[in-house]
Amino acid sequence: MKLDITTVIGLSIAICLVIMGMLLAVNGDIPLLIALFLYQPSSAAITVGGSIGGTIASFPLQKISRLGVVISKAVMEDAANTAYGDLIKEMVDYATEARRNGVLALDARTEEIDDPFIRGGIQLAVDGTAPEQIQEIMELELGSLRKRHRENQAMVLKWAELAPAFGMIGTLVGLIAMLANLGNPDAIGPAMALALVTTLYGSMLANMICIPIAGKLQQRTSEEVVRKEIIISAILSIQNGDNPRIVQKKLLTFVTKDIRNEVASSEEAQ
Amino acid sequence: MKLDITTVIGLSIAICLVIMGMLLAVNGDIPLLIALFLYQPSSAAITVGGSIGGTIASFPLQKISRLGVVISKAVMEDAANTAYGDLIKEMVDYATEARRNGVLALDARTEEIDDPFIRGGIQLAVDGTAPEQIQEIMELELGSLRKRHRENQAMVLKWAELAPAFGMIGTLVGLIAMLANLGNPDAIGPAMALALVTTLYGSMLANMICIPIAGKLQQRTSEEVVRKEIIISAILSIQNGDNPRIVQKKLLTFVTKDIRNEVASSEEAQ
Amino acid sequence: MKLDITTVIGLSIAICLVIMGMLLAVNGDIPLLIALFLYQPSSAAITVGGSIGGTIASFPLQKISRLGVVISKAVMEDAANTAYGDLIKEMVDYATEARRNGVLALDARTEEIDDPFIRGGIQLAVDGTAPEQIQEIMELELGSLRKRHRENQAMVLKWAELAPAFGMIGTLVGLIAMLANLGNPDAIGPAMALALVTTLYGSMLANMICIPIAGKLQQRTSEEVVRKEIIISAILSIQNGDNPRIVQKKLLTFVTKDIRNEVASSEEAQ
Amino acid sequence: MKLDITTVIGLSIAICLVIMGMLLAVNGDIPLLIALFLYQPSSAAITVGGSIGGTIASFPLQKISRLGVVISKAVMEDAANTAYGDLIKEMVDYATEARRNGVLALDARTEEIDDPFIRGGIQLAVDGTAPEQIQEIMELELGSLRKRHRENQAMVLKWAELAPAFGMIGTLVGLIAMLANLGNPDAIGPAMALALVTTLYGSMLANMICIPIAGKLQQRTSEEVVRKEIIISAILSIQNGDNPRIVQKKLLTFVTKDIRNEVASSEEAQ
Amino acid sequence: MKLDITTVIGLSIAICLVIMGMLLAVNGDIPLLIALFLYQPSSAAITVGGSIGGTIASFPLQKISRLGVVISKAVMEDAANTAYGDLIKEMVDYATEARRNGVLALDARTEEIDDPFIRGGIQLAVDGTAPEQIQEIMELELGSLRKRHRENQAMVLKWAELAPAFGMIGTLVGLIAMLANLGNPDAIGPAMALALVTTLYGSMLANMICIPIAGKLQQRTSEEVVRKEIIISAILSIQNGDNPRIVQKKLLTFVTKDIRNEVASSEEAQ
Repeated sequence: MKLDITTVIGLSIAICLVIMGMLLAVNGDIPLLIALFLYQPSSAAITVGGSIGGTIASFPLQKISRLGVVISKAVMEDAANTAYGDLIKEMVDYATEARRNGVLALDARTEEIDDPFIRGGIQLAVDGTAPEQIQEIMELELGSLRKRHRENQAMVLKWAELAPAFGMIGTLVGLIAMLANLGNPDAIGPAMALALVTTLYGSMLANMICIPIAGKLQQRTSEEVVRKEIIISAILSIQNGDNPRIVQKKLLTFVTKDIRNEVASSEEAQ
Repeated sequence: MKLDITTVIGLSIAICLVIMGMLLAVNGDIPLLIALFLYQPSSAAITVGGSIGGTIASFPLQKISRLGVVISKAVMEDAANTAYGDLIKEMVDYATEARRNGVLALDARTEEIDDPFIRGGIQLAVDGTAPEQIQEIMELELGSLRKRHRENQAMVLKWAELAPAFGMIGTLVGLIAMLANLGNPDAIGPAMALALVTTLYGSMLANMICIPIAGKLQQRTSEEVVRKEIIISAILSIQNGDNPRIVQKKLLTFVTKDIRNEVASSEEAQ
Repeated sequence: MKLDITTVIGLSIAICLVIMGMLLAVNGDIPLLIALFLYQPSSAAITVGGSIGGTIASFPLQKISRLGVVISKAVMEDAANTAYGDLIKEMVDYATEARRNGVLALDARTEEIDDPFIRGGIQLAVDGTAPEQIQEIMELELGSLRKRHRENQAMVLKWAELAPAFGMIGTLVGLIAMLANLGNPDAIGPAMALALVTTLYGSMLANMICIPIAGKLQQRTSEEVVRKEIIISAILSIQNGDNPRIVQKKLLTFVTKDIRNEVASSEEAQ
Repeated sequence: MKLDITTVIGLSIAICLVIMGMLLAVNGDIPLLIALFLYQPSSAAITVGGSIGGTIASFPLQKISRLGVVISKAVMEDAANTAYGDLIKEMVDYATEARRNGVLALDARTEEIDDPFIRGGIQLAVDGTAPEQIQEIMELELGSLRKRHRENQAMVLKWAELAPAFGMIGTLVGLIAMLANLGNPDAIGPAMALALVTTLYGSMLANMICIPIAGKLQQRTSEEVVRKEIIISAILSIQNGDNPRIVQKKLLTFVTKDIRNEVASSEEAQ
Repeated sequence: MKLDITTVIGLSIAICLVIMGMLLAVNGDIPLLIALFLYQPSSAAITVGGSIGGTIASFPLQKISRLGVVISKAVMEDAANTAYGDLIKEMVDYATEARRNGVLALDARTEEIDDPFIRGGIQLAVDGTAPEQIQEIMELELGSLRKRHRENQAMVLKWAELAPAFGMIGTLVGLIAMLANLGNPDAIGPAMALALVTTLYGSMLANMICIPIAGKLQQRTSEEVVRKEIIISAILSIQNGDNPRIVQKKLLTFVTKDIRNEVASSEEAQ
């Protein structure tokens, strides 16, 4: 697992350009840049803290307590998850074994399989469970995974929804205090500037942090679902004793042309 | 049943931070804070009362009269509802009994079952009702539950939609009165401040009260649906005389890894 | 049929609170309240008339001509529609009769049945139509009902969408005229006030009239669909000669706990 | 085919009321009304032309070239399309003929049928095509029709979405030019007025033209789909040799009570 | 492949009209037009760069790296993709051959087929794969294509969503800097003008570039899906040995009247 490269690049581009814009807006006056835009603890507290508070209040403890894990999973990348080519080769390998020596021959190999989903599926096939029951159990598990991921994504999207709302609440608070106290005209500009910083923070939090994280979570779900769909399709074909060629053809429909070529070329190499 | 912990924590964070923001905006002048932000009965009446009025007008009496119950259910937590581990152990227990002594052996135990949904389902199995009819009756009941919950959530979401709308109506009323009477320039600021308080209240009501409550209701629905899906799946397997091992495997697909480990470890302990 | 109680209560609350807000905004000056907020015929004409015009242009004559009926249906309440307890008792009664004396025994009773949907269904069963055809015909009718209701609701929702749009159009017209003619600074405030009244009217029309009516229509649909689903389920069970106990159990899954208790207690009373 | 009456009435109401509002806003000064609101060619060019340009860029030539036809179809009304009563009588007539003399007897009548969908369906039945194939072919055609109509509607909805966006772009252009050149305070008002006219045009284009046209297109689709569903259901019943009474009962479920009464009364008249 | 004609025409219209509006707004002062509206590198950097950064951060590298290809595909047009008439004639040709000489006769022709989807399908039919397996494999592939296209479109829509958000972020930055520094009243106008240019750029980027590209991508998907649906339907009919007349009738239901006439007239010409 390593930090997802596009998260790093994308956020760096967006943050650098926005800070560059701020620098131009204050004519390159860096202390003013920091005082005006970057060091506004109360604005940050209302938008970041308030929106996190609202998100916490919308979900049960059990899920909120996993929010940190969820976000770190979103921004990390596990190359193994998208190694569909290797996965397909592994599954075709089992199919060949099962075709040649019968499904029971796979029993000896279940212990060396790391992925509990593959191991569990092959175990079910070896145990002689009826195909409909295998399919039902494995698809129930895939359904649960989808649902858990959707709920995780819902947390981040709720955060993305509440961040600009709390930004606006902070700005309204600042505007109201300023308007109630119009005595000193010189203070109006700076007070409004301060008030607007909260809206700015809310918008940056939503568009530069929450929305990209939610997008990444969607990707992770999509990767894991494709992985599990390939496995389910393979286990059912293995139990059915399908021809390994047909199994491979079927599994390759789940992936992009690049991976198809990768699998094809690795075969020629053999 | 006890107050849902994340509702308490989340709302406390959000409310404290917003009040802190207000305090900073009025330079720590607490009486002004109260006079300006917290004690605005007419703004509160328009946003809270008006949006509740609009919500009442959108739903039938029978449902509106249950709004209080619905909200209190949303913010309370019933640990029994999410004790999926215990539920699965109970259902596997019945499955073992039915496998050993026949489904009729469960008849003696139906009286000691508290949950009417489990009791009803087992009664149907004991009565020898056809599996399709059991499934149809139990899924009709699950469908009705989903529908009732969705309608309850719709009430709170309607409230969340109307709160900012009435906030804006109140602000427009204030602005129009102010603009019609521009004679005294000194009064403009405070009048606009007052007008904006209604928008602030509408936004706070929607984002700090209604949206988190709607989120919690969604959770409660989701918890109860998973619970009932486990029960339906178990009753059908029990009647079918499935192996208790397979029943447990199937039921565990509905829950998270934590609960699977909990069930597994409690088995080893035996 | 009588006026729906929550429409009366909800709208009264909302309207009273908004007028109270207006009264406070003009410091209790009732003539000013009326001149400023309540008697603005041209604002009312643009928002109400314009949005109705846009709605008319979006639908065919045949549907628009029924808009009045649709709205009056939404705000009226027909207790018979939600008397699910009585309906279930009636259907179980037919099931008992059919079980005891055969389906043909119901032929004599069809004339005394008021509801054409029940009568038509029983007639089909008496005529010996195949169950799939009964189900197909009755569900086609339920589908048509849903569609007609959805289209009626679409009219009111279109109105709710156009009302604030025409409110904004009116405000833009007022603002443009005012800005083009900034000569007299004293006139700016009142002119802007007048312009904003159109936005206020659009928002009030949408949030206090159209959205509650659309909500009520949704309820009426939902009530009638549950009613017809109960009837379809009952007719199919009656033709199938199901045990009246099972029929009652199945029909009770469609309704809330209150009605289940009502049906149960009326049975004990017998 | 004639101009759809509700398009004429609805648009006349909306346009007259908005122009009346403009007239009041300029105190009845008609030349000013025209100069300020009606004769602003560059605002019209940006909103109308720009939004049409964006719409053109979003669709392929083949569809864009039909936009004019699509719009004219939306605002024209073809009474034949909604003459469901006549259609049902015609289909029941064929069913009677087929019941009496066999499906082949319809062969002689296919030439006199104008509607290619009815003719094609009856031809398939006469040719002895299997019912599933008839259903598949006719539903594929209905599906294609739905899709083509949905895409046509998508064009008009895209236009409705882009019109206010280009209105805002025009207003931003005007505001920026005005702000860059604040030298002459007297020019501020008129310049802002001009800038806002573009927003007004965008809003009027979307709410008074595009949205009603999209609504009408939805209606046309809905009418044609009901028509084709009646025909498919009838052809399948005809081939199946169903009793014409049952065919009529089934077809009448697709239509409103008015048309049912019309069909019933025309029968009594015979 | 050539540049899609409506992209060129539509964008030209929209861009010319907006520039014309800018020219009018600055009274034909072209250097001012350029300085004010067209040459604002920091505004362009924040909206274009920031929104691209946010989009990059939302997707995995593998997809982002194909964004350029995706966009160029959207604005290019491949006439072969929509030559449904030729496709249908080709498929009917194979059906005729298969009907006359058996499916195996197609084996000799598979090498001359360019489209890998058609070739793969016919190969499966020639190999005697069971029809359900052919359908499953080909529909899995169609499903993967839909999913890949939907994800590509999601990237462009995310960009369209982030562009105005970054436009607003830039404007807020400019406004805040201006308000914090109200000392020089003469600088207010130009500073606000500069700030608003970012909003203008964000709105133009979204409405004139991203939304049309997303629309075009939708079209490309739709074209390719229809193409593949025709092929799947044809292969299944070919294997089934259907009458070429029926095959043609079925395939023609997928296309518009124009193409039906084209196919019909080319037949008469033979």
